[in-house]
Amino acid sequence: MTASVDLNSDLGEGFGRWTLGDDEAMLDLVTSANVACGFHAGDPSTLRRCCEGAVRRGVAIGAQVGYRDLVGFGRRSIAMDPGELADEVIYQIGALDGLARVSGGRVGYVKPHGALYNDAASSPVVAGAVVEAVKAYDAGLPLLGLAGSQLLTVAAGAGLATVAEAFADRAYTPQGLLVPRTQAGSVLHDATEIASRVVRLVTDGVVEAVDGSEVAVSADSVCVHGDTAGAVAIAGAVRAALDRAGVSVRPFVQEEP
Amino acid sequence: MTASVDLNSDLGEGFGRWTLGDDEAMLDLVTSANVACGFHAGDPSTLRRCCEGAVRRGVAIGAQVGYRDLVGFGRRSIAMDPGELADEVIYQIGALDGLARVSGGRVGYVKPHGALYNDAASSPVVAGAVVEAVKAYDAGLPLLGLAGSQLLTVAAGAGLATVAEAFADRAYTPQGLLVPRTQAGSVLHDATEIASRVVRLVTDGVVEAVDGSEVAVSADSVCVHGDTAGAVAIAGAVRAALDRAGVSVRPFVQEEP
Amino acid sequence: MTASVDLNSDLGEGFGRWTLGDDEAMLDLVTSANVACGFHAGDPSTLRRCCEGAVRRGVAIGAQVGYRDLVGFGRRSIAMDPGELADEVIYQIGALDGLARVSGGRVGYVKPHGALYNDAASSPVVAGAVVEAVKAYDAGLPLLGLAGSQLLTVAAGAGLATVAEAFADRAYTPQGLLVPRTQAGSVLHDATEIASRVVRLVTDGVVEAVDGSEVAVSADSVCVHGDTAGAVAIAGAVRAALDRAGVSVRPFVQEEP
Amino acid sequence: MTASVDLNSDLGEGFGRWTLGDDEAMLDLVTSANVACGFHAGDPSTLRRCCEGAVRRGVAIGAQVGYRDLVGFGRRSIAMDPGELADEVIYQIGALDGLARVSGGRVGYVKPHGALYNDAASSPVVAGAVVEAVKAYDAGLPLLGLAGSQLLTVAAGAGLATVAEAFADRAYTPQGLLVPRTQAGSVLHDATEIASRVVRLVTDGVVEAVDGSEVAVSADSVCVHGDTAGAVAIAGAVRAALDRAGVSVRPFVQEEP
Repeated sequence: MTASVDLNSDLGEGFGRWTLGDDEAMLDLVTSANVACGFHAGDPSTLRRCCEGAVRRGVAIGAQVGYRDLVGFGRRSIAMDPGELADEVIYQIGALDGLARVSGGRVGYVKPHGALYNDAASSPVVAGAVVEAVKAYDAGLPLLGLAGSQLLTVAAGAGLATVAEAFADRAYTPQGLLVPRTQAGSVLHDATEIASRVVRLVTDGVVEAVDGSEVAVSADSVCVHGDTAGAVAIAGAVRAALDRAGVSVRPFVQEEP
Repeated sequence: MTASVDLNSDLGEGFGRWTLGDDEAMLDLVTSANVACGFHAGDPSTLRRCCEGAVRRGVAIGAQVGYRDLVGFGRRSIAMDPGELADEVIYQIGALDGLARVSGGRVGYVKPHGALYNDAASSPVVAGAVVEAVKAYDAGLPLLGLAGSQLLTVAAGAGLATVAEAFADRAYTPQGLLVPRTQAGSVLHDATEIASRVVRLVTDGVVEAVDGSEVAVSADSVCVHGDTAGAVAIAGAVRAALDRAGVSVRPFVQEEP
Repeated sequence: MTASVDLNSDLGEGFGRWTLGDDEAMLDLVTSANVACGFHAGDPSTLRRCCEGAVRRGVAIGAQVGYRDLVGFGRRSIAMDPGELADEVIYQIGALDGLARVSGGRVGYVKPHGALYNDAASSPVVAGAVVEAVKAYDAGLPLLGLAGSQLLTVAAGAGLATVAEAFADRAYTPQGLLVPRTQAGSVLHDATEIASRVVRLVTDGVVEAVDGSEVAVSADSVCVHGDTAGAVAIAGAVRAALDRAGVSVRPFVQEEP
Repeated sequence: MTASVDLNSDLGEGFGRWTLGDDEAMLDLVTSANVACGFHAGDPSTLRRCCEGAVRRGVAIGAQVGYRDLVGFGRRSIAMDPGELADEVIYQIGALDGLARVSGGRVGYVKPHGALYNDAASSPVVAGAVVEAVKAYDAGLPLLGLAGSQLLTVAAGAGLATVAEAFADRAYTPQGLLVPRTQAGSVLHDATEIASRVVRLVTDGVVEAVDGSEVAVSADSVCVHGDTAGAVAIAGAVRAALDRAGVSVRPFVQEEP
């Protein structure tokens, strides 16, 4: 049996004159594109170009929904009413879906961004708002999120499909959680090491934790970053290593018949 | 044969703490709701409530797309690239369509707002951008606009359905054009007079122009304003007069089977 | 000895097409205008008109700084870096000061708005950011805030002048704190009752708490709301009652020589 | 007599997560920094850092005011009311002045950005709004703009000091105007050629026009761009060539006594 995995990355995160990362390069490496929806980043033309590039390559399009916070890039929690949050999520999914469909594709899944990702991972209320929005928009859309998070628990409880992700460049605790970014060594930078870890995670289901122990991590998708030149090289190393290891790298979203 | 007409109004134009007009009152009077899409007005929760109110009453939902200009309420021309404008229009239609579908309806037509309405009426380039966007999003969506405008001409040339509108409270020139707002007498304020004019326009196809002559005006839809208390009363008078005259007031958008 | 007090109100809170409250009516009643600074509300022309109206009447101008959140009207906490918050506060004070000076006045004090008001009242970190900003901009500017709040404590510790405010239309606990808005009876609506309470607070330094007991409340300024028609009437009743009681209603900010 | 000139560049044009150009590198080369004011670019913390960097080096700070248009980077004309434009300019100058003063400096001049620069160069109405704003804020602030433009004409007529600028990397017509960007050869890219042209312009008052003829160009300040890696190198070449030629490169703004 061949091991398989999805590679996802945050894309479409420029805004007008301001660019971020190299969407075209990353679209050659990943199988799922978490495309911004305009609230934390992403003007409509950038989003459309990103969707068109994804469709050309058979890369799945996900709605990377976030807080309405351009200056904070969606990285700051906003204490908002859950009903209003749900409506903002629906607005964003619909907007991106319009651009995706015009590009010949569609929104195939949803992944919260930044502070909304973190809030939905830990708060059942925030998770509930995101889940309610996705379910109302299209109950067939899977949610991509952190393994073991509130978001995936609430989503599964509501009958949505869930997809657990691991992070290529993050250190793990012996309990299988992410080492907080505030701690030294939380982010890995060596492309070769990162690539080896991802292959092992996909083929054996284990990663080496910060204390040297082995911890089981199960992930249907691995997140690679693309917003710096170095990050693109790391993503390329990960993809090449997976290809060499005979892992089938493919989207978790299946095309509509 | 019974005369029929559609009544449309701009709705959903609040933004967070700020409200504008009385959407609920107007939804009881009109048959088509031009719902803002968030760029010139309309936060997602206001838009969703407006869509839900429209669906409850069988009122058709139109995407009232505009320039990205909250502080200017979309009333200021922005000299923008036509391709970017098209993408912004798609984004807005998609966003509202998401909220409309969650509410049990759908976007059934498109009407540009404010400065975009005016620019698309006079500029083939702007009209072309709007038409391209609508056609790409859903070639079955009609465009609602000024009779004889570039927007409707370009839309028809591209194979889109077009719906011409007249204005209940505006004076007309002997040539059947709107008297510019900068001229005295361009806007009518007497509810009884306005209601009578609309009935005559619908049943006889004529209005009395500013010089007292009669001019033929053909309209499938009549726009009534709702953003002031007085405007709601005028809209009520128009609706009552049409009902008394036996005119069938109904949406031009037909429900999907 | 004559009792004296300042009356303050949040003004300049429209945004373009959207208006809120009746600034002109309120400027006739209050002695200090907390003028929005554009981040939670207030386009530049609205702010300038408000400043001009304040200057004409000898009403002091305060910078009502808030989170950058138009759609949330600054009522939602944003978890932001304290250094960035300080810079945003400086930006807002400077912007309003420019408009105030062009109007013949100047920013004479600072009062945080909405969620920033609440956060600065309870969090020493947020309070510190606001205080640092005010001190850096002009160490002679007093801070207007909740009596006993972190904001006033931190401000006093940093050498800034502080002005404690009470709320005309809010119920108090026997401990002299505000009854949370989530509790029934937290907001008073009867103009006569509110006016009597304010007079007693100013002349005797006591208010009747929700349990009927008397509690000492000391305030240099009393906040009256102006964003509804009813609120203007209440503010008028408060002002009239103070005048009748012989209380000197005057700004706490002294004009520059 | 020693020839002298000012070098200016647009700085502070990032926004939150998005950076643009290398402010620190450019501040080492120029003598006047046109610092964005938050409407077309520039979050408060970026602006403060830029002001602090300018003050450290004795670089003059100018308010680079623009249209309120983040997604368009202020490069799109917005047809707005002149009075509202004046108020928006005052707001921006005041906001930046607050950050500049906190940094130990002050706004020493004003230069419109992007579409506002172009509109103010050609339209007396737009120029008048900018001039009115600057005069109202501080009649001692000079306006930096295109030689021979409406902006400088209107400013001089209103009694403001004016500073004419030339562009280091732009081709000139035989009449001394800029070759429009839409024409081939309008922008120069060779650092050595650009540097030589600037030296000649400063020392001899002439540039070679696109047709090979010599044309007189008088400029008190030369604009160099800094928003790409190549641009920084060009700016460095210009500065080095001026230094080698013995030209005194210094701000046109004199420090306050």
